[in-house]
Amino acid sequence: MTKISFIGLGHMGNPMANNLLKAGFDVKVFDIVPAAVQTLTSKGAKAATSLQDAATDADVIITMLQTGEQVSKTCLAEDGIFPHVKKGTLYIDSSSIDIVTTKSLHNIANTSGIKMLDAPVSGGVAGAEAGTLTLMVGGEENNFNAAKPILEKIGKKIVYAGAAGAGQAAKICNNLLLGISMIGVCEAFNLAKKLGLAPEKFYEISSNASGQCWSMTSYCPVPGIVSTAPSNQNYQPGFMAKMMLKDLRLGQHAAESVAASIPLGAEAAELYSLFVEQGFGEKDFSGIIEWLGGRKF
Amino acid sequence: MTKISFIGLGHMGNPMANNLLKAGFDVKVFDIVPAAVQTLTSKGAKAATSLQDAATDADVIITMLQTGEQVSKTCLAEDGIFPHVKKGTLYIDSSSIDIVTTKSLHNIANTSGIKMLDAPVSGGVAGAEAGTLTLMVGGEENNFNAAKPILEKIGKKIVYAGAAGAGQAAKICNNLLLGISMIGVCEAFNLAKKLGLAPEKFYEISSNASGQCWSMTSYCPVPGIVSTAPSNQNYQPGFMAKMMLKDLRLGQHAAESVAASIPLGAEAAELYSLFVEQGFGEKDFSGIIEWLGGRKF
Amino acid sequence: MTKISFIGLGHMGNPMANNLLKAGFDVKVFDIVPAAVQTLTSKGAKAATSLQDAATDADVIITMLQTGEQVSKTCLAEDGIFPHVKKGTLYIDSSSIDIVTTKSLHNIANTSGIKMLDAPVSGGVAGAEAGTLTLMVGGEENNFNAAKPILEKIGKKIVYAGAAGAGQAAKICNNLLLGISMIGVCEAFNLAKKLGLAPEKFYEISSNASGQCWSMTSYCPVPGIVSTAPSNQNYQPGFMAKMMLKDLRLGQHAAESVAASIPLGAEAAELYSLFVEQGFGEKDFSGIIEWLGGRKF
Amino acid sequence: MTKISFIGLGHMGNPMANNLLKAGFDVKVFDIVPAAVQTLTSKGAKAATSLQDAATDADVIITMLQTGEQVSKTCLAEDGIFPHVKKGTLYIDSSSIDIVTTKSLHNIANTSGIKMLDAPVSGGVAGAEAGTLTLMVGGEENNFNAAKPILEKIGKKIVYAGAAGAGQAAKICNNLLLGISMIGVCEAFNLAKKLGLAPEKFYEISSNASGQCWSMTSYCPVPGIVSTAPSNQNYQPGFMAKMMLKDLRLGQHAAESVAASIPLGAEAAELYSLFVEQGFGEKDFSGIIEWLGGRKF
Repeated sequence: MTKISFIGLGHMGNPMANNLLKAGFDVKVFDIVPAAVQTLTSKGAKAATSLQDAATDADVIITMLQTGEQVSKTCLAEDGIFPHVKKGTLYIDSSSIDIVTTKSLHNIANTSGIKMLDAPVSGGVAGAEAGTLTLMVGGEENNFNAAKPILEKIGKKIVYAGAAGAGQAAKICNNLLLGISMIGVCEAFNLAKKLGLAPEKFYEISSNASGQCWSMTSYCPVPGIVSTAPSNQNYQPGFMAKMMLKDLRLGQHAAESVAASIPLGAEAAELYSLFVEQGFGEKDFSGIIEWLGGRKF
Repeated sequence: MTKISFIGLGHMGNPMANNLLKAGFDVKVFDIVPAAVQTLTSKGAKAATSLQDAATDADVIITMLQTGEQVSKTCLAEDGIFPHVKKGTLYIDSSSIDIVTTKSLHNIANTSGIKMLDAPVSGGVAGAEAGTLTLMVGGEENNFNAAKPILEKIGKKIVYAGAAGAGQAAKICNNLLLGISMIGVCEAFNLAKKLGLAPEKFYEISSNASGQCWSMTSYCPVPGIVSTAPSNQNYQPGFMAKMMLKDLRLGQHAAESVAASIPLGAEAAELYSLFVEQGFGEKDFSGIIEWLGGRKF
Repeated sequence: MTKISFIGLGHMGNPMANNLLKAGFDVKVFDIVPAAVQTLTSKGAKAATSLQDAATDADVIITMLQTGEQVSKTCLAEDGIFPHVKKGTLYIDSSSIDIVTTKSLHNIANTSGIKMLDAPVSGGVAGAEAGTLTLMVGGEENNFNAAKPILEKIGKKIVYAGAAGAGQAAKICNNLLLGISMIGVCEAFNLAKKLGLAPEKFYEISSNASGQCWSMTSYCPVPGIVSTAPSNQNYQPGFMAKMMLKDLRLGQHAAESVAASIPLGAEAAELYSLFVEQGFGEKDFSGIIEWLGGRKF
Repeated sequence: MTKISFIGLGHMGNPMANNLLKAGFDVKVFDIVPAAVQTLTSKGAKAATSLQDAATDADVIITMLQTGEQVSKTCLAEDGIFPHVKKGTLYIDSSSIDIVTTKSLHNIANTSGIKMLDAPVSGGVAGAEAGTLTLMVGGEENNFNAAKPILEKIGKKIVYAGAAGAGQAAKICNNLLLGISMIGVCEAFNLAKKLGLAPEKFYEISSNASGQCWSMTSYCPVPGIVSTAPSNQNYQPGFMAKMMLKDLRLGQHAAESVAASIPLGAEAAELYSLFVEQGFGEKDFSGIIEWLGGRKF
């Protein structure tokens, strides 16, 4: 049976590892927080005693961490993954990290005989629990094909994005656009309201016209329009503003690394930065509509 | 039979008036350009000899002009519409103009016994010719109901937006969002491409995810993806960049008039302003992708 | 003796009129607020009973109002200034208003035999009281020369800026730059502080280097550095944020009227708009440093 | 006699090393470009055969490189500086690099018994040749005092900015402000011109008012006003736009590293990014006035 080591058992990693366990894989888990490990060993996972232990005889290793720096250390440290895996091990990084780090790790993996994929996810904690995440995957296509049966236990939609780094690129570019269009939707609704145009009426018109976008029709920042949207729960996340800021910063790094210009992306990042800095980082990212509109939560 | 006077026979007004003619109305037309009048008299319209003549015994008057200033003069000049219409005339302004002017005209119309509607359109020249425009209508609802059978000969979708000015508000807010999301889509595609992510692949992923928007899925600024988009015709409009700039400026005026903050809207306006100022005002507004990407047309 | 009518006796107009009175001119005053008139009649001014009365036999008329619309009405209404002045009257508008309105009034004045100057001021209430304002004057140079002896009683520095509208243009462009550079200074100090670089040290370095600007060296937004700056009085104005917003909006209107692109100006306007909308409009404009830095007043 | 090793002999490093040579120091030089080395050996410098050779018996080591990555490698590689210097060596990095890298190097130096200073310069190639650079220095104050007699041969103004990284912080914050205020000055002059206000007149007014800043009064982007400014030489640098972009990017990194918001800084970076991407990176940074104004070089 395929032996999977899963490293990083936070809000996202925990349910993802659990879904692999439920699918019948032989799962070994590692996290620096012992309690996170226990919730999974109590369900049948093995506990790795160290990164090295997690790496040693796994067929597949999956990481779900916060930052590129964490992923880099986890892979490259003396007691990390890369120095201790078997040749031919499949390594899947599902963290959302920067392009430069992921490409650099792909290169090192390649020269070390490790089969790496970058496979960031979207869908949030709810999607992780339900196993309905979308995974955007970069790396060699035959590695993608090998990984697919495993990834299908974690997510519902597994998309091959292209060569090394293409998974991260897809997520970064999508979320760049998401951050911009969410603020655009907020500005439009705020303006409509002040002009005396009812939000429901503006929704009816614009959602059927050229203003239509996911931020409006699936995640409307005005309450009372899209029932599943966090706006109806006083902007309880959902997708925290500080996580959107993180992704927009990744967009800026990516743009800088390839000399692309993203002026609205940069401004969206700064608006989220002000919102977060002024104390609203743990609100849902659609909550910026209140701040932009000069209202209080 | 209902007598309609149609004033302003440009690229949009001409086919709109023609559709009313085809629908069997008694149409009198006026424009300062004689040739524009002749194309319609040759199809059966009557020619008004002056604004006053157009106003005098019409049941319904429709204007389709460029600016709030033009509409204001056409209505309020001594030899303009308002001083010469019958009481109870229905006056429909389909121009896209600023909120302050339209509200002021509604007030004057109201005290003069004129039934005014603001009814800006979207759908472009193609929509005007095919009679498939969307009309967003502001004013009293019974006036809207009276106008609807006429407007249905001009457009396919006739939406009641609310009180006086709500039609302009709807168009302004929608196009504010459109301008922002188009630039967002352009930035995302430009970045994806430079990161080595194929546009088709990014489209496949993002159009099914949280980046989805009309600018991407109905009007994709990258050629080869949405067949009807101007990007496939080297950005021949379509909807000219300078017209988008006009609409974004209307958004800024509207925001200022009600003390709303629209930071991305303001930045989108400035980017279109640079694009127009550098010589690309008559390109389709999606063509800004080339300029943002440092490429040449 | 030269008869001067002064219209608009607010925070600025009152001390300006008073300085003319102290200089020995025959001053008639008008304001819609009776109390404002009384403070000056008690010092020897005559009270005009109406705009028409203020206009009728004045040699010089000065207006100091809030908006272009007010100035327009004051000049053009049936009972306003222009219909009732003598030919050859010198009309000086010291309000800060938009370019389009001022140019339009100059044209009308010209055809009516009225000698108009636009002469906005800078220097605030303190400068108005001390008679140390700067006046930027647009209009015909011989009119400027005729007005100069009067203006020198109001301000210390009387600059001829050029043809009709040039005074407003000078003030608008200067304050556009001021708004941008103030935010720039705030961003630089906020970043320096978070990086562990003491504000005094950054001031010492940058004020002697290429970052030097008036916003830093004469009006430092960090307290304890420039003793006369409002930052030392918890951002009591000084120059209110909402007035800076007004001037930045004038900049946007001016830019739009001549198809100029001012991207940082537009963004500065939106940042002040957010600041004002969130409740800080009556703080000094340098107080935006607190808001940008995520701090509370 | 103090033995100084100087590493990095580009446009800036070459004249800096030469000034040390002229001051009588025993200078050993290293660069990966042999020709750069030869221009200095012909003047009396010794050539280092490797980084290790440059490091081995120096009393002082100075680096003048392009990027944080280069500095990092030069210091930390197996054949780099840090593994091969004597204890107590003074290491001065005059490159302009990011805060995170410089702080990390300070930490490593500290634990290795190396006395590090960050000492970025301003003043350009002309200042490097004339020995009139400004140096902003971070690190321990006694190390600063030890370095000062050497640095005074390179620059005219040697400022102690504070603890490790404070030199880089000072330069980054200053240039952030410089980039913003230069664009602000450009926008103001472009708008003034289109409004019919002569540049000389606007300069006269604003340089004596609240718009005054170094970008205007020492480096005016309009030709014919400040004789030494690159605008008079068709924007031959001076300070290249691509170098300003680099510094603004350092500002963004710094801001991100400490959670500061710099909205105008971000927008200024994007405007320079568009300017550079569209082919003008080697123009002086003040040349952006032409691009912002829709003109051609």
